[in-house]
Amino acid sequence: MNDHRTGISAWHDHTPGYTGRLGAGIGEGVQVRLRVTGEGAGDVTGVRLDFVRVGEIESVRATEVGGAGEGRWFEAELPLDAARVRYAWTLELPGDSLHLTALGLHRVRRGFRSWFGYLAGHRAPEWAWRSVFYQIFPDRFRNGDPTNDVRDGEYLYQGRPVQKAEWGAPITKAGDIHAHYGGDLQGVAQALPYLEDLGVNALWLTPIFVSPSNHRYDISDYRHVDPHLGGDAAWEELRAAADARGFRLVLDGVFNHVGNEHALFRAAMEDDAAPERSLFTWRDEPGKPPYHAFFDLPSLPKIDYRAPEAVAEFLNGERSVVREWLRRGAAGWRLDVAHMIGTGGSDEDNLELHRALKAAAREERPDAYVFGERFFDPEHALDGQGEDGAMNYHGFGLPVMQWLSGADHYGRPSRLEGEELAELLHDAWHVLAPPVALSMFNLLESHDIGRALFRLEGDRTRFLAAFTLLMGYPGVPCTYYGTEVGLSQRQPGMMPWCRESMPWDEAAWDKGLRDRVRALIRLRRETRVLQEGTLRFLHAEADALGFLREYTDAQGQVERAVIIASRRREAHPVTLTLPAGEWRDALRGETLPGGEVTLDAAGGRVLLQG
Amino acid sequence: MNDHRTGISAWHDHTPGYTGRLGAGIGEGVQVRLRVTGEGAGDVTGVRLDFVRVGEIESVRATEVGGAGEGRWFEAELPLDAARVRYAWTLELPGDSLHLTALGLHRVRRGFRSWFGYLAGHRAPEWAWRSVFYQIFPDRFRNGDPTNDVRDGEYLYQGRPVQKAEWGAPITKAGDIHAHYGGDLQGVAQALPYLEDLGVNALWLTPIFVSPSNHRYDISDYRHVDPHLGGDAAWEELRAAADARGFRLVLDGVFNHVGNEHALFRAAMEDDAAPERSLFTWRDEPGKPPYHAFFDLPSLPKIDYRAPEAVAEFLNGERSVVREWLRRGAAGWRLDVAHMIGTGGSDEDNLELHRALKAAAREERPDAYVFGERFFDPEHALDGQGEDGAMNYHGFGLPVMQWLSGADHYGRPSRLEGEELAELLHDAWHVLAPPVALSMFNLLESHDIGRALFRLEGDRTRFLAAFTLLMGYPGVPCTYYGTEVGLSQRQPGMMPWCRESMPWDEAAWDKGLRDRVRALIRLRRETRVLQEGTLRFLHAEADALGFLREYTDAQGQVERAVIIASRRREAHPVTLTLPAGEWRDALRGETLPGGEVTLDAAGGRVLLQG
Repeated sequence: MNDHRTGISAWHDHTPGYTGRLGAGIGEGVQVRLRVTGEGAGDVTGVRLDFVRVGEIESVRATEVGGAGEGRWFEAELPLDAARVRYAWTLELPGDSLHLTALGLHRVRRGFRSWFGYLAGHRAPEWAWRSVFYQIFPDRFRNGDPTNDVRDGEYLYQGRPVQKAEWGAPITKAGDIHAHYGGDLQGVAQALPYLEDLGVNALWLTPIFVSPSNHRYDISDYRHVDPHLGGDAAWEELRAAADARGFRLVLDGVFNHVGNEHALFRAAMEDDAAPERSLFTWRDEPGKPPYHAFFDLPSLPKIDYRAPEAVAEFLNGERSVVREWLRRGAAGWRLDVAHMIGTGGSDEDNLELHRALKAAAREERPDAYVFGERFFDPEHALDGQGEDGAMNYHGFGLPVMQWLSGADHYGRPSRLEGEELAELLHDAWHVLAPPVALSMFNLLESHDIGRALFRLEGDRTRFLAAFTLLMGYPGVPCTYYGTEVGLSQRQPGMMPWCRESMPWDEAAWDKGLRDRVRALIRLRRETRVLQEGTLRFLHAEADALGFLREYTDAQGQVERAVIIASRRREAHPVTLTLPAGEWRDALRGETLPGGEVTLDAAGGRVLLQG
Repeated sequence: MNDHRTGISAWHDHTPGYTGRLGAGIGEGVQVRLRVTGEGAGDVTGVRLDFVRVGEIESVRATEVGGAGEGRWFEAELPLDAARVRYAWTLELPGDSLHLTALGLHRVRRGFRSWFGYLAGHRAPEWAWRSVFYQIFPDRFRNGDPTNDVRDGEYLYQGRPVQKAEWGAPITKAGDIHAHYGGDLQGVAQALPYLEDLGVNALWLTPIFVSPSNHRYDISDYRHVDPHLGGDAAWEELRAAADARGFRLVLDGVFNHVGNEHALFRAAMEDDAAPERSLFTWRDEPGKPPYHAFFDLPSLPKIDYRAPEAVAEFLNGERSVVREWLRRGAAGWRLDVAHMIGTGGSDEDNLELHRALKAAAREERPDAYVFGERFFDPEHALDGQGEDGAMNYHGFGLPVMQWLSGADHYGRPSRLEGEELAELLHDAWHVLAPPVALSMFNLLESHDIGRALFRLEGDRTRFLAAFTLLMGYPGVPCTYYGTEVGLSQRQPGMMPWCRESMPWDEAAWDKGLRDRVRALIRLRRETRVLQEGTLRFLHAEADALGFLREYTDAQGQVERAVIIASRRREAHPVTLTLPAGEWRDALRGETLPGGEVTLDAAGGRVLLQG
């Protein structure tokens, strides 16, 4: 961060060169360091570390220390008195003072929202930072065992017979939630070599528990895998195979509502005096089900966590669903509509419930990765005590795809430009404590919104720009099944059109695309600075943006990456200023000097240093 | 808010032209309106109102309606499902969309922090918006009855005899909290004609209850007025006199800690088995008192609100201190170190405790004004359910004085410029729901920080710029006793130097200053747009800034004020663009055209229209 009036630059981040360690406990202290560079660095006469304790700002004086890297280094001990400690730096100058927060260098004290954040006692699931996820919608990924397929008309769902769909058959509106394509967990296990070759090492499976719909978000029994997905045996088989290949499996936890065929709900409906009544919120409103339900859909009764039995059954009881599947080998939970979970038919007590859930998950598995589906701005929920992170629709996926495609996820046109995109991305990033920011679950697309390739009209250049941003951005990247070989959709819109079955006929694959995707995934997997580095925006113009990732180790050695992306379909020369020193293009191999460079940003570029 | 690419301007605020009413209840709906102007206004094909409900964004279509004012008007009903409803507008255009939040017009969906906020069921103390406060430090304002003065050596305080100081004698370090000047409530009552002439109509009295120090923040008995201030009889007399002249009295509530002579604390100290033990937090830490205390000062034991008895005694019991003094005629409470109040020796449960306090206060007096001393960024506390507002050190007083004086409140130099000042002010303002933003307690100085005149080296021009900003800014303005006649301090620093006794010899007064201050106070009292209008920054440069206040009534009639201030001591011509139409200088009487004007901003200007 640079102050042009004094010629001073100052930097601090969470990497070892600047922060002694992450996850120190309450009552401990952590060494934090500031680096001051620039022509004005010599004018700094003193540095203070400011921090918030019981609502007050306190300060300690920082000591100038020798540092391996360029510039002047200052160090102080940050005392940790609370789960989330806010801190900032003050640089004293003759006749002036500068404050450094995550927002930059300023002369007036900024609001706490922009201060640096340290999470005391927070153990981030760091394996997730080093992972690339692959999202699987089980019914559509691979049919490993045709004998367990749903048969045409096998049962009635919402009064209408379910359908058996042929693999590869177009999605239809009628088949929206009734058509079953036959994918199963055996298929996932069979595909592990394919996925390993692609370079991903973690899977998010949308729900696998017993459920009558093809999406399985209306769960009848959380204790068993749906027999049509191969049942519990297939889970054990997949888990063993995944373990053997170093894959982690994250399950989809639907804890806002159950399906109306769930035993607890059936018991509650059958008897007005049943104790299970307390697990739901009853009401009498014209035109609505007599109980609160997800978007008032009768098939999705909302769980009322005022009932201790509900909290125990699903979240944190000794045999809770959350605990059970972690014991059975899941590596974490993606939490469906995490923002809706609450008491009394509302989202009240949401954060307290997520804290209870997370604490139970961590007891079972200290590195469990718990992240919420929070489709909208999740900032208020991300203090590290609840979810580790959230699906990053707000702060990454939706704005990036809006910019690249010229339309929002509903298809409504937008002339969003790169400058505003960078501003939004930085705003959403800088307010999160780093262990949370690095645990955000980044994605371009999912089973809920239109496929990236479709939204980009099949254009590979723009898609690769998007994928470069995904692999380059802080947070845990996730790619959606099939995209790597060119799977798109046949109709505009979001679900169900984005849920086509995966093509396994290699003749249908775009192998050139797959090679590019694979190279980017592998680069991400191999490159620590992309997994754990801090973030600084370097450049933004209407059709392009560029950002820096940086990781400073305890010895002051710096690794850097610069990601540049354009939204143009054709060559797009972009001029920006790189940090000094030699750079190499991670995919093309060529080298570039530091300083001002002009390069073609179409399709995305990744430059590395150190 | 203007989008230069489309030539569209759009506006929405809390005044009647745009918001049907404030304070509608949960379960109700409120009509909200958007005005679209500019050369591109005709291109808008539709408008949606977006709002957050149970964590989801929902939308309703707005209807174009006839409006009295210029431009196109759109209206929709905002449903109120929660105590704080966030909402925004979307403008649909051919090939584009614009979102309007309190931050401005944007193409990407912004974080909820910047959305408009509606507080359902919140009754703001609107009388405070129409008031100008005067802060009195009772020992130093006026000695109305010398017979009740503290006598030299009358008692020991912290082991040292108290002193009687002569009125007008310089403050000394030794007399910091030991020297009593003799001011009392009789003196305040006697001064009401003087205060009425000045134009103020509300008083904030720092603590008046029984206490051994001169500042009385270490209270021995909350149920009685200190006999040295005239005792309970003087309160009754003052209250009656204030009522007769239309003055409201706000008391200072010290609910974080008591004085160590308080009966509850004495009982707790005297007997390890006393039930009063539970009202404090006991500990055994080397070098610290055996109980949690304000800044570890033994004389200020911190109240532990884990004890229901503590909550009942001070906050919301049937005979709580909060209730008692509202029954006895106080109009509200200023809450000392509001950010520290909590349980277990910390600030935990702070917001819940403030909600309990506020609910009790409102039961006693539906228009009680409750605001917290939150010296630092108070954003997290200001959802309307706790305090009505906070002392606006963070979002007004400290940065304004830092900019004007070239130093922060500790006297540390700063080259803060007007552009950054405007950015900070707007950031702090725009995140507050309007009934809270208008209830913020604005001040330039207080008994805790250096006097404004001293920090500005006695320079009347810069002081009048500061005072113009104070009277022109949204929030409840408060001036500190004596400033109006030129009272300053004899030594640099904050307390106790800022607590000189008020000069009552008119020969010592700067009557020219008083006339200017009085004119600005009267202008504020007479001008609705200054009391209740919305805020938009018009101009910022290193040494000057300008902002617009605007109030649109239900018929679309607009009142406007523009406030401009410079920090220069000499004439400073500033060029800015005023909204169209004729303007008049509120103090000089001259008229100006709208559009681009150049005028001398030194000392501050207020322009009015409508």
